[in-house]
Amino acid sequence: VSSPLKPGARVGILGGGQLGRMLALAAARYGFKVHVFAPEADSPAFDVAAERTCAPYEDQTALSAFARSVEVATYEFENVPERTAALVGGLTRLQPGATALATLQDRFAEKSFVAGLGIRTAPFRAVGSSDELEAALATLGRPAVLKTRRFGYDGKGQALIRPGDDAGKALAAIGGVPAILEGFVPFERELSIVAVRSADGAIAAYDLCANEHRDHVLAETRVPAGVSAATEEEARTVAARIAEALGYVGVLAVELFLLVEDGAERLLVNEIAPRVHNSGHWTIEGAETSQFEQHIRAIAGWPLGSPARRGTVRMQNLLGDAVEQWPALAAEPGAHLHLYGKARTAPGRKMGHVTVVRPA
Amino acid sequence: VSSPLKPGARVGILGGGQLGRMLALAAARYGFKVHVFAPEADSPAFDVAAERTCAPYEDQTALSAFARSVEVATYEFENVPERTAALVGGLTRLQPGATALATLQDRFAEKSFVAGLGIRTAPFRAVGSSDELEAALATLGRPAVLKTRRFGYDGKGQALIRPGDDAGKALAAIGGVPAILEGFVPFERELSIVAVRSADGAIAAYDLCANEHRDHVLAETRVPAGVSAATEEEARTVAARIAEALGYVGVLAVELFLLVEDGAERLLVNEIAPRVHNSGHWTIEGAETSQFEQHIRAIAGWPLGSPARRGTVRMQNLLGDAVEQWPALAAEPGAHLHLYGKARTAPGRKMGHVTVVRPA
Repeated sequence: VSSPLKPGARVGILGGGQLGRMLALAAARYGFKVHVFAPEADSPAFDVAAERTCAPYEDQTALSAFARSVEVATYEFENVPERTAALVGGLTRLQPGATALATLQDRFAEKSFVAGLGIRTAPFRAVGSSDELEAALATLGRPAVLKTRRFGYDGKGQALIRPGDDAGKALAAIGGVPAILEGFVPFERELSIVAVRSADGAIAAYDLCANEHRDHVLAETRVPAGVSAATEEEARTVAARIAEALGYVGVLAVELFLLVEDGAERLLVNEIAPRVHNSGHWTIEGAETSQFEQHIRAIAGWPLGSPARRGTVRMQNLLGDAVEQWPALAAEPGAHLHLYGKARTAPGRKMGHVTVVRPA
Repeated sequence: VSSPLKPGARVGILGGGQLGRMLALAAARYGFKVHVFAPEADSPAFDVAAERTCAPYEDQTALSAFARSVEVATYEFENVPERTAALVGGLTRLQPGATALATLQDRFAEKSFVAGLGIRTAPFRAVGSSDELEAALATLGRPAVLKTRRFGYDGKGQALIRPGDDAGKALAAIGGVPAILEGFVPFERELSIVAVRSADGAIAAYDLCANEHRDHVLAETRVPAGVSAATEEEARTVAARIAEALGYVGVLAVELFLLVEDGAERLLVNEIAPRVHNSGHWTIEGAETSQFEQHIRAIAGWPLGSPARRGTVRMQNLLGDAVEQWPALAAEPGAHLHLYGKARTAPGRKMGHVTVVRPA
């Protein structure tokens, strides 16, 4: 464990979206200078960064200069190309580290890792060909979901295979790339837990979140999730075991399925995001320390802050045209409005969010 | 009243210190793009701004370009030169407006304005020469405080004249510039009220703050102030009347003296700051809407947010070397640490602050 970063130190962020933007705002609050590296000229995080590099993730010269200019680097998304991460990690401290990234950016490696810890997931098989897909379908049954092993998010790179569907078409639909087939899980609800592990191994977790998706994109998060205390505790244990097994430093989110079997609640791990997470945005107003502050604290080698919740929380994403509601939301008492400064609205695009915290 | 600024619009800030920095962070949260104009290359606000202009306040070319690039401009300090304000205000919307600035950046104009509203101040006289100073001392008595009419802050440009002191030396000490003599006020405590007025005339005020100064610099703010409900109400009324009389748009702070006369609390206005104020920093965690968010809302023509307080608040400034306590403060549960990213520490310099909010 290296010594904690001093205020004034430079923190690098790979990725310039809203997560990078909110990370940059949190870092500024602690007096760090932020350098954002992103390929898109209109990256929302550029607007709040002390330094900006606009270049492709394959530009080794730009990446080297970026890495050398910062005392620690992090990322806002798990799909950082492997070579980009290796280059940056070779020149500066990269947190979360290469192990976490390698394990969690491949769905098969991720699920194998979770299963290896004895934690339940949906049944899964790696699929490299149509023969393997047929064999996997024979084992896991239908319906099942075929997903690309890499670079999927928000439902992209996925195909549902129902009884009677042509499996070959599903494989073609996701581009014929290395894939994973996941068996059907009769879940009741989607939950997530956002946790953070510090450089010295301390762990803090926020309360379990109840999530509602629309068209595979998070629409709403509510906390408390309304599950049993035992399920809350189990989620914390799952997150802590995952973070420890990866030697993880920073914030991570574990997406979970809640099943009810014989009247008892059971958790399954759906996927793990090695980064701050949309379902944790409520922590800006709803918790003593936000997920963005926690991530900065962790990667800076600082002690963690308190994850204590302040009330009953509801966070809604402003997707696409929903952002046009901003005048009403700005006027709504108790509504905490966040807008990401994106120039272009597109259907389903995350334009902002709004959080309401009611006294518990 | 012009129409509300849309997210994505550009907001200009004159001044690059910690107030400008925290204003920029609040503006970013609502999706505005911030352009900071400041003369010092290492201005803390530059690090969180989308656009930066580093130039003297007398650089008309730079000022014009700045003003033309933004849809509204504001300032973080009341000592914006008059010609600077006039130039910017001629090219874009300047909020708070020129009337507020002209009235409040001259101590004599300010006190005359307040007294003209029938609101109590310390007794005062304008002083333009040593003869006028002697005459003023004869009327107001000693001790009295001689202050420059313009450009004073944090006790700078002030000289105390005690019985037996050479008044001519005091006048020389403040540079022989136009001054104001203020009579001695036997105050018990120093208070302040931070309020905000929107473009459509709505007013919101935070709870009264109890302030403690060291060497003329704010050291600590506590809320609630522990005064009577009548005094709280009187402070709100004073702030509202001042804001209305100035046609003010934005956050302003009224510094007050609390006197106890015949067992009853009385308020005197000490001075008015036409900007966000150090004694309002606690609102970041301690109120539903921070003073920085309120100021941005007001100048953007948005509705105001709720000023409701969340608990019992204590804000301490980190002055000079006190900033070296950051590792302990980062580890203190419930302590909300803010560091301004200033490269150079100097005695009494505001390097950061820390806020603790306890459930009420």
